[in-house]
Amino acid sequence: MKLATLKNGQPDGRLVVVSADASHCVDASPVAATMLDALQRWDAVQPGLARLSQALDIPDARASVGALPFDPQQCAAPLPRSFQWLDGSAFLNHGRLMERAFKTPPIADFETIPLMYQGAADDFLGPHDPVPLPSEDDGIDYEGEFAVVLGDTPMGVGPQQALQHVRLVVLLNDWSLRSFGPREAKSGFGFLQAKPSTAFAPIAVTPDELGPAWREGRVHLQLQVHRNDAWCGHPHGGAMHFHFGELIAHAARTRRLSAGTLIGSGTVSNADAAMGSCCIAERRMIETLAQGAPRTPFLRFGERVRMLALDGQGGAGPFGMLDQVVQQAPGTVAER
Amino acid sequence: MKLATLKNGQPDGRLVVVSADASHCVDASPVAATMLDALQRWDAVQPGLARLSQALDIPDARASVGALPFDPQQCAAPLPRSFQWLDGSAFLNHGRLMERAFKTPPIADFETIPLMYQGAADDFLGPHDPVPLPSEDDGIDYEGEFAVVLGDTPMGVGPQQALQHVRLVVLLNDWSLRSFGPREAKSGFGFLQAKPSTAFAPIAVTPDELGPAWREGRVHLQLQVHRNDAWCGHPHGGAMHFHFGELIAHAARTRRLSAGTLIGSGTVSNADAAMGSCCIAERRMIETLAQGAPRTPFLRFGERVRMLALDGQGGAGPFGMLDQVVQQAPGTVAER
Repeated sequence: MKLATLKNGQPDGRLVVVSADASHCVDASPVAATMLDALQRWDAVQPGLARLSQALDIPDARASVGALPFDPQQCAAPLPRSFQWLDGSAFLNHGRLMERAFKTPPIADFETIPLMYQGAADDFLGPHDPVPLPSEDDGIDYEGEFAVVLGDTPMGVGPQQALQHVRLVVLLNDWSLRSFGPREAKSGFGFLQAKPSTAFAPIAVTPDELGPAWREGRVHLQLQVHRNDAWCGHPHGGAMHFHFGELIAHAARTRRLSAGTLIGSGTVSNADAAMGSCCIAERRMIETLAQGAPRTPFLRFGERVRMLALDGQGGAGPFGMLDQVVQQAPGTVAER
Repeated sequence: MKLATLKNGQPDGRLVVVSADASHCVDASPVAATMLDALQRWDAVQPGLARLSQALDIPDARASVGALPFDPQQCAAPLPRSFQWLDGSAFLNHGRLMERAFKTPPIADFETIPLMYQGAADDFLGPHDPVPLPSEDDGIDYEGEFAVVLGDTPMGVGPQQALQHVRLVVLLNDWSLRSFGPREAKSGFGFLQAKPSTAFAPIAVTPDELGPAWREGRVHLQLQVHRNDAWCGHPHGGAMHFHFGELIAHAARTRRLSAGTLIGSGTVSNADAAMGSCCIAERRMIETLAQGAPRTPFLRFGERVRMLALDGQGGAGPFGMLDQVVQQAPGTVAER
């Protein structure tokens, strides 16, 4: 099943069910008005959403449920805001490169205890929204990631049991400001100014929708990034060191996680340099190691970043595409 | 004006207006069903809430608005969940002691750039709720703090302008698990397992309700803590190094803050040892400096912690009292 949220002027938008081919959608409000509402009452609403999904996938039945063409341009993030967004760093190749980039000391238990920071969940960006930021001097960067969206998850859940609480899988761009990263990491309090609003591809999918690409708690798809018209990378999501169940269990060690909690994979990253990179900071570190200095600049206002999960046939995979342009936030004056 | 939230089986509870003497309350749902709803539509609902507040404060008018006795035992947190909770560390005395306790290196710009971590906002505890935690071995500690609750706040807001976005002031216990703190601080990703659900005193007040105790962006009240029947401290909130406007501006540097965002002061702490401490970790560090080793143990299941802001006459000040007991979380098995 594929779900999305259309903008309607309200902070939570309006939930729609999307056809398997992403050509059509249908208003889900008779079943659940918003994605947050659906996640909070999942067992009750899932059958109704599934019926809409089935009707959408029969072209002759589409009219009977009031299907409309699906336009990703009208989409908010599938979950436009939530009560919790926890982002892991489960691709060790990325972690190792960032450690060198930030010049921070090696982290103990790097391979046995997941790294995870708490992000801002109050203001997610839609797939075609501009990205408003205060200054080009902040080291504007993207990070391509997968994430799972949870139902209510109890404190102390184990890694395998945790996977039973995964309701949806999403694709996101964890926009990052690198000039704040090293200081915030060294402060011990974690990333805050370094992490502005996160953006999401238009379609959230149930794990079964991914078929064999969802296995062992990982998304076995390549995440492709373009900066303007240049290919930057398409590393494989299957290379996650910690799987999503382990990340959820880590998050739930001392707290319960309420429905709608998002758990991110961290930047998708492969050790094979031919796969490219899902963020600029990695690329710059690779350049520094090979050539003594970074060559790829961070983003400037007006630049465009596109992300999608490859479907194997060269098309935008199950999540649809993120396609955003970075711009000066209205009214901001960089006070530093 | 004083506001509170009564439990009603729903995650956001039911908003009530509380009388100035905290003896009575009245259902606010004809004006705003929940605190989150009120914060999101503050300008529209504030006059209606103020009218209820005025009626409550005239004993003869209470019956006409359907006033009921106010029972803090029935309260959830004033804002039972929100989309963002950012906690500063604005009392430098606390920061300096914790730096020594965690054995982390001195933080650059400690006195000019606020420290702030992003906390879990999805599951706040009410003032009399038990505190479910997985293990006594985690270094269970309390932290007494003040916080402000914001209306919509734009990216790039300055420190003085930021204070105009403060809607409410609250008192909270930032429950902490010290055994996770040093590792999470050193990882650079900030506190996660170290910060279970935060608990709140029952009453949220508008800044004007504090009178002269709200000035220069600070809460000029003493925060008193008891562990079981023993006094632990009553340090003064006026000693904040960064005021709340500066903390808000720091948080809004690269993001807008949506209505309902909470910004915390960090543990209230004074350099004068006679004022005591609002957390055990400080006390243990003071003992270590004076006597070579900590003497005060962290909390065990069954222990009780009470917090209030002194009103100057020995009573529970404007926020009412937090009175909680720590207990083993049901179903948790410490997996370490």
